[in-house]
Amino acid sequence: MRELTVDLGERSYPIYIGEGLLQEAPSFFEKHGISKKSPLLIISDDKVAPHYLEPLANALSAAGFQPSTAIVSSGESSKSLAVLEDLVTHALKAGLDRKSAIVALGGGVVGDLAGFVAASYMRGVKFIQIPTTILAHDSSVGGKVAVNHPLAKNIIGAFHQPEMVLYDLNTLQTLPPRDVRAGLSEVVKHGFIWDDAFVQWCDENSERLLALDPEALGYALYKGCSVKAAVVSKDERENDLRAILNLGHTIGHALEAVAGYGELLHGEAISIGMIGSAKLGLRYGAPEDVYTTTKRVLAKCGLPVKLPEHFDVDAIMEAMMHDKKFSESTMIFVVPTAIGEVEIKKDVPASWVREIVEELKQEAG
Amino acid sequence: MRELTVDLGERSYPIYIGEGLLQEAPSFFEKHGISKKSPLLIISDDKVAPHYLEPLANALSAAGFQPSTAIVSSGESSKSLAVLEDLVTHALKAGLDRKSAIVALGGGVVGDLAGFVAASYMRGVKFIQIPTTILAHDSSVGGKVAVNHPLAKNIIGAFHQPEMVLYDLNTLQTLPPRDVRAGLSEVVKHGFIWDDAFVQWCDENSERLLALDPEALGYALYKGCSVKAAVVSKDERENDLRAILNLGHTIGHALEAVAGYGELLHGEAISIGMIGSAKLGLRYGAPEDVYTTTKRVLAKCGLPVKLPEHFDVDAIMEAMMHDKKFSESTMIFVVPTAIGEVEIKKDVPASWVREIVEELKQEAG
Repeated sequence: MRELTVDLGERSYPIYIGEGLLQEAPSFFEKHGISKKSPLLIISDDKVAPHYLEPLANALSAAGFQPSTAIVSSGESSKSLAVLEDLVTHALKAGLDRKSAIVALGGGVVGDLAGFVAASYMRGVKFIQIPTTILAHDSSVGGKVAVNHPLAKNIIGAFHQPEMVLYDLNTLQTLPPRDVRAGLSEVVKHGFIWDDAFVQWCDENSERLLALDPEALGYALYKGCSVKAAVVSKDERENDLRAILNLGHTIGHALEAVAGYGELLHGEAISIGMIGSAKLGLRYGAPEDVYTTTKRVLAKCGLPVKLPEHFDVDAIMEAMMHDKKFSESTMIFVVPTAIGEVEIKKDVPASWVREIVEELKQEAG
Repeated sequence: MRELTVDLGERSYPIYIGEGLLQEAPSFFEKHGISKKSPLLIISDDKVAPHYLEPLANALSAAGFQPSTAIVSSGESSKSLAVLEDLVTHALKAGLDRKSAIVALGGGVVGDLAGFVAASYMRGVKFIQIPTTILAHDSSVGGKVAVNHPLAKNIIGAFHQPEMVLYDLNTLQTLPPRDVRAGLSEVVKHGFIWDDAFVQWCDENSERLLALDPEALGYALYKGCSVKAAVVSKDERENDLRAILNLGHTIGHALEAVAGYGELLHGEAISIGMIGSAKLGLRYGAPEDVYTTTKRVLAKCGLPVKLPEHFDVDAIMEAMMHDKKFSESTMIFVVPTAIGEVEIKKDVPASWVREIVEELKQEAG
């Protein structure tokens, strides 16, 4: 088992990564002072619950905890105030009090949703993350929790740090291959913003990752979480440094907004976005291998590195321009300057960005 | 003008109390670094808005701020997730960003609601309280913000401290007399839990308070806020000390739950509850004048000190027993031990409480 600490003073918490941690959950709960007198609420979704909810709840019950469970529909639409209200109904009926804990068992959607329930129920109760996707290594570190509003994603939320993150590598074995690949996108991103040795490791170990080799996966998640934790520790409230985590996300979010639902997974959009950022890096004088390595590693992870032909460049540019931080002619981008290093460029000409989006369609992919 | 500081380390903030502060709001906003580049949202209700919203918005506009406004229905029913979602729609359409501030112009309902919007919009933006009731002196200190759930009051919320509280005494001049009296209930309570000299002052100045004499009101609100601030500073998250603020509230909340809507205002129910607590104090050996003074001061403020005959004692006891902290036979009460001093008694016999509730019907009032 690997362990690391997200260092946030009083709000510091550990991340445990290993095989079989779901079965060992009761001893971790005991170690971290989770109450057996107050009921727990485990929130999961209808894709994850059939595999892992009953084993977790049974293990906790057997150890004397009082788990109740709630299952939401999988997918982004569950991140709503209506579902939040339903979950609070669950919590009230199950008798959760101020000493109770809320457990997220699932991917990023469940983590964001359950985390905001934990942040707001009785003005804040304990929260435990048990992520079951690779992508969730990203969202389970940093305490950003939220639900969506019909007009904007993640606009109603809080910073609410968990008591711990329990990453059971066995739960990743049931992930669909496309979700494995998409999850690796953020893993690789963490290398590119912070750690050139880890980029090299990804370059050499992509096949083991795609085969869900537990040793390789455990190491990659440990490194990915470590980078995220290091950044978040220095900037919990996203004042400055935390912005580097957005490498590939400016273009990526625009692609997600423009694509039809389900055409591009978040990790896939970010992969194409990272290629765009690397190309921008070249314009700012980064060495050629920043671009070639970005492209090679992402391609090895089975991720798209080329923008599909039918995407409309005007629509993509317009989606990016919704960002209020941008002026009409300049944009802000996280740009790689070397492998494992990025800078925030605040005056990127919008014309360059448009050219690069055009070029993304011509990439050999 | 009077000024005091709620001392919460990094989250400390000032309370300004004086006449005409609404017109001076722009200079306070400037002093506290509220952004003129980012839009503001002022939230008020349909009773307060006709008097004070336009003057405030106009003053802010004239000074270069960008206020937008939203008006909710007055009353507890506005503290809902549905209204929260509407207000976030307002905020998004008005273009509020992470540097924006949300302003509560109104009583406790508006403060709680607007405060939770501020706590959760973009995971937290700045919040400014401009209370327009006497009762709100209580809720505007301490950072507790929330909305209701159909099954429970204030169950979805946060601790979110304001940047400042601006208390314009002129806005209290339009308060209905019954709301004046009910507001004084919490003012007096702050004396009884903390400050015997202030109790004596209330005893001597009740007529001036009822006549809305600005000098007396300003002093009383300053003292009330000071007590609340002292308690909250020592226990922001309500772990222990903060419980003393509940003097009169255990019986009071039960009366509110049992009474028909609108029959008892919060402050009126708390007044009767404080009489009950004082009677409990006598059983624990407090000197007789704790009880007589409590009763005299509350009666001088025009508050009820007797339980109306038609209230059902069984129903009141049952409402209290919903509190999970109580066992079947014992309850927890804040009990006065001297004027200006209380203790938390954790093993109050439920039979005593029942007897006292019965006796409350026999009070001379």
